[in-house]
Amino acid sequence: MTNIDWKDKKNLTMLADFYEFTMANGYLENDMEGQIAYFDMFFRAIPDDGGFAIMAGVEQLMGYLKNLRFNNDDIEYFRSKNMFEEKFLNYLKDFKFECDVWAIPEGTPIFPQEPIVIVRGPVIQAQLIETMVLLTINHQSLIATKANRIVRAANGRPVMEFGSRRAQGYEGAILGARAAYIGGSIGTACTIVDRDFDIPALGTMAHSWIQMFPTELDSFKAYAKIYPNNCILLVDTYNVLKSGVPNAIKTFDEEVIPRGFRPKGIRIDSGDIAYLSKEARKMLDEAGYEDCPIVASSSLDEYVIRDLLNQGAKIDSFGVGERLITARSEPVFGGVYKLTAVEADGRVVPKIKVSENVGKITTPGFKQVYRLFDKKSKKAIADVVTLHDEVIDESKTYEIFHPLYTWKRKTLKNFYAEKLLVQIFDKGNCTYDSPSVYDIREYCKEQIDTLWDEVKRFENPHEYFVDLSKPLWDIKDQLLKEHK
Amino acid sequence: MTNIDWKDKKNLTMLADFYEFTMANGYLENDMEGQIAYFDMFFRAIPDDGGFAIMAGVEQLMGYLKNLRFNNDDIEYFRSKNMFEEKFLNYLKDFKFECDVWAIPEGTPIFPQEPIVIVRGPVIQAQLIETMVLLTINHQSLIATKANRIVRAANGRPVMEFGSRRAQGYEGAILGARAAYIGGSIGTACTIVDRDFDIPALGTMAHSWIQMFPTELDSFKAYAKIYPNNCILLVDTYNVLKSGVPNAIKTFDEEVIPRGFRPKGIRIDSGDIAYLSKEARKMLDEAGYEDCPIVASSSLDEYVIRDLLNQGAKIDSFGVGERLITARSEPVFGGVYKLTAVEADGRVVPKIKVSENVGKITTPGFKQVYRLFDKKSKKAIADVVTLHDEVIDESKTYEIFHPLYTWKRKTLKNFYAEKLLVQIFDKGNCTYDSPSVYDIREYCKEQIDTLWDEVKRFENPHEYFVDLSKPLWDIKDQLLKEHK
Repeated sequence: MTNIDWKDKKNLTMLADFYEFTMANGYLENDMEGQIAYFDMFFRAIPDDGGFAIMAGVEQLMGYLKNLRFNNDDIEYFRSKNMFEEKFLNYLKDFKFECDVWAIPEGTPIFPQEPIVIVRGPVIQAQLIETMVLLTINHQSLIATKANRIVRAANGRPVMEFGSRRAQGYEGAILGARAAYIGGSIGTACTIVDRDFDIPALGTMAHSWIQMFPTELDSFKAYAKIYPNNCILLVDTYNVLKSGVPNAIKTFDEEVIPRGFRPKGIRIDSGDIAYLSKEARKMLDEAGYEDCPIVASSSLDEYVIRDLLNQGAKIDSFGVGERLITARSEPVFGGVYKLTAVEADGRVVPKIKVSENVGKITTPGFKQVYRLFDKKSKKAIADVVTLHDEVIDESKTYEIFHPLYTWKRKTLKNFYAEKLLVQIFDKGNCTYDSPSVYDIREYCKEQIDTLWDEVKRFENPHEYFVDLSKPLWDIKDQLLKEHK
Repeated sequence: MTNIDWKDKKNLTMLADFYEFTMANGYLENDMEGQIAYFDMFFRAIPDDGGFAIMAGVEQLMGYLKNLRFNNDDIEYFRSKNMFEEKFLNYLKDFKFECDVWAIPEGTPIFPQEPIVIVRGPVIQAQLIETMVLLTINHQSLIATKANRIVRAANGRPVMEFGSRRAQGYEGAILGARAAYIGGSIGTACTIVDRDFDIPALGTMAHSWIQMFPTELDSFKAYAKIYPNNCILLVDTYNVLKSGVPNAIKTFDEEVIPRGFRPKGIRIDSGDIAYLSKEARKMLDEAGYEDCPIVASSSLDEYVIRDLLNQGAKIDSFGVGERLITARSEPVFGGVYKLTAVEADGRVVPKIKVSENVGKITTPGFKQVYRLFDKKSKKAIADVVTLHDEVIDESKTYEIFHPLYTWKRKTLKNFYAEKLLVQIFDKGNCTYDSPSVYDIREYCKEQIDTLWDEVKRFENPHEYFVDLSKPLWDIKDQLLKEHK
């Protein structure tokens, strides 16, 4: 059933910034192609001033990396530019991906300033994949994060992703729906997403269906006859309370119940949803349809949903469109990709990029990220960025400290530590099986449950600790001093 | 050189909302599959409260429509849902697109409430393509419109699209870059866009290039030796004024000039661009490089660019990333797709959708859009939405009037009228050759020149007239009265 074109088989090698190739050619000309470099992907701020983001896109990143290659057209294209050496064109012809790659698994809550992807390998290759590493992870992490905000606002009520028609490009729709599912939506309106990712697609009727029949009642009855066991009626084509809901009730009475089914819902797509849903609820209840859900779907997002529920709107599930699929309130996830180390004589030499802006100073070195959990509550206490091979001994106490305000310290005991970064490529070979998107979604839910409520608040959430281990902090401090 | 995969060969038939299929199955069950329906795509508001939008995406829409078909996997997918009849599955097997489609050509300024795409055909088919018509045109029109705002703010200075890494999905990057070019950018950082659309890709170096060498000067010199005729140096890795610009000048002196070339530029990617560019300009001028352009590229959009230029920043060209490629200030283009008529006994029967909200009442009927120009100034005066076969006689005076405030009237003389909607499919066959994206870009520039400056203003632009012809207005008025 699965068409793996979207997941695995697409050659997107040329979806790279042109400077990756001018630099690659330059490294070859300087005989630096064998130089081993380390890059971190990380981000600096959580969209919408939220308390956490959600990692997503690793499966598509793997698909891209597995299919890295240059075909003859690509090579002729570069030749036509009259700026690349034959040595470079030959390099592309024989290109074989050889990097090691680590990533935080999809569905994991992630925080600013910690590496979420690490790439180690020949500088040309590690540099070349920059654009797609960022594009793939930025996009899906953005949408998973936004979807989860909306799901949390809905407070247990199902959220459906309805936004394909307003998405930014085809994968904006398709992979956006995938990311939304990771973030907690229960399904999508988009058929291809169901076919290719086994994410449930649902949908009933547009206003045009109703307009195609002589009357609204005719259109409802025609629908109910065909789908008596799946009858959700769109009630706002003419007038929700005067026409839509009464006609829906009549249809349930005459076409659904006699066939031995219960109605699956009514949908309100315009107007004052709070008022209309409360009135519609009363009408449905009086008609004996207390179990008939009310679906709302009009320019919703986490803020509108929270307000509607605060006003007592009687909504059982939400269809969320453009504001989810584009993350309208903040449509950019600002992941960056920075050089952190090189190797010289087999030794890792950390590299730093300084900046007047303290937040833009990078953390040097080859790293790992540990998440520390309290043994009793199982809640996440802090993330600690360490050197890659550092071990955190859970049997002892462990002191964490703020990397800027170093007098802020805390000693942990009765904790356990989990490594977040897993290796997904070893010398160019994929070493990781991506879980099903359903399992990723379940894992995501579990992981978010390990966060304190204070981190999950929409307004002014508590800032989760992302600290550096003492050995890593020392290296950074040393390099900063050398730069002064 | 061109890989038409992105343009023409992709089967995206299943990128459709699931309700298109439940409705299609329903139409078949009601023996309505031969019923002819008319749908309009139009939008209700211009992003960013701008004065106009720009049509884009028609070439990709054509590619999609040419490749509409269902394969066995698709049919098995639907069968597995246990809700579709065999009649429907057979219909999909033998599917052949038979609609007529009209669209406003890419690059044309477009306005709210006028049809920008019209589809006429069997209701199942005309309905089925809703999601992709909207997705394709919404996305590219959004980005073309945003890019043009940025290009206008830059006031003649070149704008490059740099946003791939923060785009929403792969086509978000690729087709976004195409749309940005239509809107007036001079090129892109994205290589695949150059290969597939002949849109110039440019790019030099990342900060990592500079960090890979022992010193900034070493890295600049290494680059200049390889690309002496195309030497743009990134000067903000360490310190723009104390290190970057002096090292760039030294490199130009020692590696570029002796080889017989002039420098192509320096790029500033962080810090206070207004101040840094003015100081850098002085340093370059004093060194004899008055002709060396300064490129700026740090979280720019039309507002930042306007402010920088107002402050006298010495910037010669702009690289614009995430805020262009996601249209960050308003990432949604709200095009909708509404039933406007059906045919009964070969006669067009207009359909209206009423709403409490006056702006959401649709305009019924099968239409055309005329743009009326003043003969002397060649400026666009108004768009008039007419019945499809209506003729506007340029040899007589013509009265236009506001469709809501009908006492607002104006009599035009010495005008000429151009039809905006062109037929792109005739009974399912493509009848339109898409111009090259370069020609679309030139056409776009010409068409924007026909708009008065008042329409092009960023703040409170003049609202361009989109009127209804008297015959169309009468039909709408009549239907509204019947609905009361």
